[in-house]
Amino acid sequence: MTEQVKVLDYGYVQLIDTWGRLSVEDAAGDAALVAAARMSTGKGFLGWGGTENCPSCSSAFLPHYVDASTMKCIACGGTGKRSGDEKLLAFLYANKHMTPFEMGGATFEVMAPIFVFREWHRHRTQSYNEMSARYAPLPDVNYVPSVERLMINAGSTNKQAGTVKDAVELTPETAEAFRKYLKRQYEDSEKFYQEALSAGIPKELARVAMPVGRYSRMRASANLRNWLGFLTLRNDKNAQWEIRQYAQVVQTILGGIFPRTVALFMEGKTG
Amino acid sequence: MTEQVKVLDYGYVQLIDTWGRLSVEDAAGDAALVAAARMSTGKGFLGWGGTENCPSCSSAFLPHYVDASTMKCIACGGTGKRSGDEKLLAFLYANKHMTPFEMGGATFEVMAPIFVFREWHRHRTQSYNEMSARYAPLPDVNYVPSVERLMINAGSTNKQAGTVKDAVELTPETAEAFRKYLKRQYEDSEKFYQEALSAGIPKELARVAMPVGRYSRMRASANLRNWLGFLTLRNDKNAQWEIRQYAQVVQTILGGIFPRTVALFMEGKTG
Amino acid sequence: MTEQVKVLDYGYVQLIDTWGRLSVEDAAGDAALVAAARMSTGKGFLGWGGTENCPSCSSAFLPHYVDASTMKCIACGGTGKRSGDEKLLAFLYANKHMTPFEMGGATFEVMAPIFVFREWHRHRTQSYNEMSARYAPLPDVNYVPSVERLMINAGSTNKQAGTVKDAVELTPETAEAFRKYLKRQYEDSEKFYQEALSAGIPKELARVAMPVGRYSRMRASANLRNWLGFLTLRNDKNAQWEIRQYAQVVQTILGGIFPRTVALFMEGKTG
Amino acid sequence: MTEQVKVLDYGYVQLIDTWGRLSVEDAAGDAALVAAARMSTGKGFLGWGGTENCPSCSSAFLPHYVDASTMKCIACGGTGKRSGDEKLLAFLYANKHMTPFEMGGATFEVMAPIFVFREWHRHRTQSYNEMSARYAPLPDVNYVPSVERLMINAGSTNKQAGTVKDAVELTPETAEAFRKYLKRQYEDSEKFYQEALSAGIPKELARVAMPVGRYSRMRASANLRNWLGFLTLRNDKNAQWEIRQYAQVVQTILGGIFPRTVALFMEGKTG
Repeated sequence: MTEQVKVLDYGYVQLIDTWGRLSVEDAAGDAALVAAARMSTGKGFLGWGGTENCPSCSSAFLPHYVDASTMKCIACGGTGKRSGDEKLLAFLYANKHMTPFEMGGATFEVMAPIFVFREWHRHRTQSYNEMSARYAPLPDVNYVPSVERLMINAGSTNKQAGTVKDAVELTPETAEAFRKYLKRQYEDSEKFYQEALSAGIPKELARVAMPVGRYSRMRASANLRNWLGFLTLRNDKNAQWEIRQYAQVVQTILGGIFPRTVALFMEGKTG
Repeated sequence: MTEQVKVLDYGYVQLIDTWGRLSVEDAAGDAALVAAARMSTGKGFLGWGGTENCPSCSSAFLPHYVDASTMKCIACGGTGKRSGDEKLLAFLYANKHMTPFEMGGATFEVMAPIFVFREWHRHRTQSYNEMSARYAPLPDVNYVPSVERLMINAGSTNKQAGTVKDAVELTPETAEAFRKYLKRQYEDSEKFYQEALSAGIPKELARVAMPVGRYSRMRASANLRNWLGFLTLRNDKNAQWEIRQYAQVVQTILGGIFPRTVALFMEGKTG
Repeated sequence: MTEQVKVLDYGYVQLIDTWGRLSVEDAAGDAALVAAARMSTGKGFLGWGGTENCPSCSSAFLPHYVDASTMKCIACGGTGKRSGDEKLLAFLYANKHMTPFEMGGATFEVMAPIFVFREWHRHRTQSYNEMSARYAPLPDVNYVPSVERLMINAGSTNKQAGTVKDAVELTPETAEAFRKYLKRQYEDSEKFYQEALSAGIPKELARVAMPVGRYSRMRASANLRNWLGFLTLRNDKNAQWEIRQYAQVVQTILGGIFPRTVALFMEGKTG
Repeated sequence: MTEQVKVLDYGYVQLIDTWGRLSVEDAAGDAALVAAARMSTGKGFLGWGGTENCPSCSSAFLPHYVDASTMKCIACGGTGKRSGDEKLLAFLYANKHMTPFEMGGATFEVMAPIFVFREWHRHRTQSYNEMSARYAPLPDVNYVPSVERLMINAGSTNKQAGTVKDAVELTPETAEAFRKYLKRQYEDSEKFYQEALSAGIPKELARVAMPVGRYSRMRASANLRNWLGFLTLRNDKNAQWEIRQYAQVVQTILGGIFPRTVALFMEGKTG
């Protein structure tokens, strides 16, 4: 089994399945994308040129300035030419020929607070199967932000997402107090929920007072192109910090399966 | 302005926009769907045969047994032949030629509890713009089920969604008590939320204890085919009662705009 | 490599890749769909009951009348109860809970005439990468229907797709003559195409006289739910005979990977 | 009726329907997109600042350098601040908050050669209803490129789409000869087609020798976001010249309905 990569206090991301092979017999990753793209000219995957890394300092998976044939390493500043099928892959990506990137994909299992799932589910090109509080009582696991997280000031994320007008400035002491009261609030909710269930309130209604910080669980499946669309919005400085933690893990795992494509994605963001 | 149709205790559905016209100059509804379907043979909309109603008892929009050319009224039992373009529309629907039904559509504004939106957003072919608790404090409006609603027994909805094992049988008195405690729970949540905001907790985190019974607001837009897909699952006896109330209003409004198509949809469910 | 399954005179369908596993370590098929569905209650795949086949005559993958818990064999007429996770899978399918069926999928390579691709590409939930006549001259391979195919009378397919009014009745001799003239027509087109290319006409324009019976090649990828949608319309008596030959091969291959789901699909069509 | 805007020798684009209103009673365009976006904060459309045009030279719908709050006119070089809801619209667009742009849309009727439709139909987020050669003989209308079009050298479009190796250089005289032979080729195809139909060959097979330069007709419907996706690829120097002629007309018509959004789209391409 692949491991559950821990996210936040009780969440995780776990790779369940991945696809994108040259044939059912061979493993592949990016090579299958190239093979699919080559359908247009009738050729297949021809081979890597060994230039996915920086030709000067050899750093791998680091953003290089995007141009179909040239790259400039942001680690050492050295430049070089792409060669082999890295060049075709870079050309496809730079020119928005995105259909070959639909030929691979991945399924993840994710445990995250409901408010994170609320943002996640806006990505309508993924497939979802989530736990349902209609059918089974949700486990009593709730998200409590750390003091460090609470102290990240509005400037570093989205201003709009910051404090309300007339709020006092947050101190670590208040943040700690918030955590204490939040836990109590969660306990109260759980007590109310259990009492309602015992009293014969149907599960689908007993849940209405359940907080959006409660954890749920799902499987999410999408092709690579759509995972990149997810990362574009969610592994971004304007994304809420919590969902970004999940997006970073997704990006790291995908980077292990489709290393050249994820490198191009990173180049696109910094180039 | 079209009116806000009240749903649940504080929610509503309001028609914002609708499309599906023969041309930008003419009004249409179902006729535009026929015109689009006739692209395949190069003809346009030819005219209704006046048989959308029962030929015996004249009842309108009532489900008739579905067959491309024959219908049987469930009100009076009389049978008759469809004629005119009702016949083509019925043929398309019965044979799952659904693309013409994508040529009309509607946009609604909806106010509903978060747990209803959680179900609604699984329909990935709709477009959504929702209020965001990251950017603005959500109004303090929360869903409290009525005693009648709470007493609907598990049998009439989905068994899985019912009570947990070992629960006592629900009485109207306990239901009334649940309502009282639920309101207090909501008040506690709101108090906690406001205090957190004043203390400088960012909006995007102060919200984590917010209950899923709190109301939010959105606009939802889709073409007619996809609205029918929504109604298939959500205006169904297995759907949770709350979202079904919204689905019924959506169906009634769409029935006013696309009467023959919605009648076919109803026939399909009872035929 | 999986083999190319021959279709029509020069076409084929070849399985390139498939997904839907319990985890990256384990193989799966239908079991992964069950595991995804069980996210809703927090349980996983529990095990098959061994009732995918008829309990009386043991025939496998034959349509049985669809009901979440009962099945009636169309081979021997015997009835029996479904048990194990076959029962859950049948329940999901019968109640249109289709998201678990999005958790598996397959990629095929297909060689088919352009007019077949024109129908295929209307399925907008698949991903495509096709050969392009803009970039490379298409190989000179063209579809010539057999006499048997030409003689299939209009009644057995779609009436609308049949002969024009005032046409004489087709005889095997005329069909044979049509084949002869069609080949000559294809040869003329190819000659015209090659001369245009040699004369310096750009590839993207030299192709305009190319017939829709010419073969092209593509990869097509979709999840299982969307493949079933494809089969619903294309492996159907109303589909054009040519695309149906492709759909039958797709169905057979998918039946080998997801046997219980494809059996439910077949039950749904005959039940 | 809106007019048919002529494209190529026998094609056209015609606006059939458009949507995106503040309410069913009011006209709107871009204002409805703003109203939808404001769902997130609970406010509605507040009003335009009158800065959609260049503040210096007043030129309208001309690309200005894209920045949520500043614009630089490419006509006069003058700079200015955006104000009013133009600023919000520009912010949404620049930050890829694209869901508000799904709240408007348009339906077009299009007559174009089959090879153009083959490219068009790869846009899988549009809805299509097209004439079918299975059901009705296609009209005998075929695309013959002009000499000017034929002489556009490979450099100005896509090199890959250009001439084959070893081709002689195209002269206006050869281009004219190509036109003559192409017409004859089309006539031969039509003669073959009509004879096959008369001889009793079913319509769905008589068509196999039909050239991809033959005209067909369809309705295409999509929301604004997806029309912009279409324009990104098809109103681009790398697109085939023929489909680009259609894309330009679509862009002009959309620019009349959603002027500020289309201006932002143009800014994004030149900024």
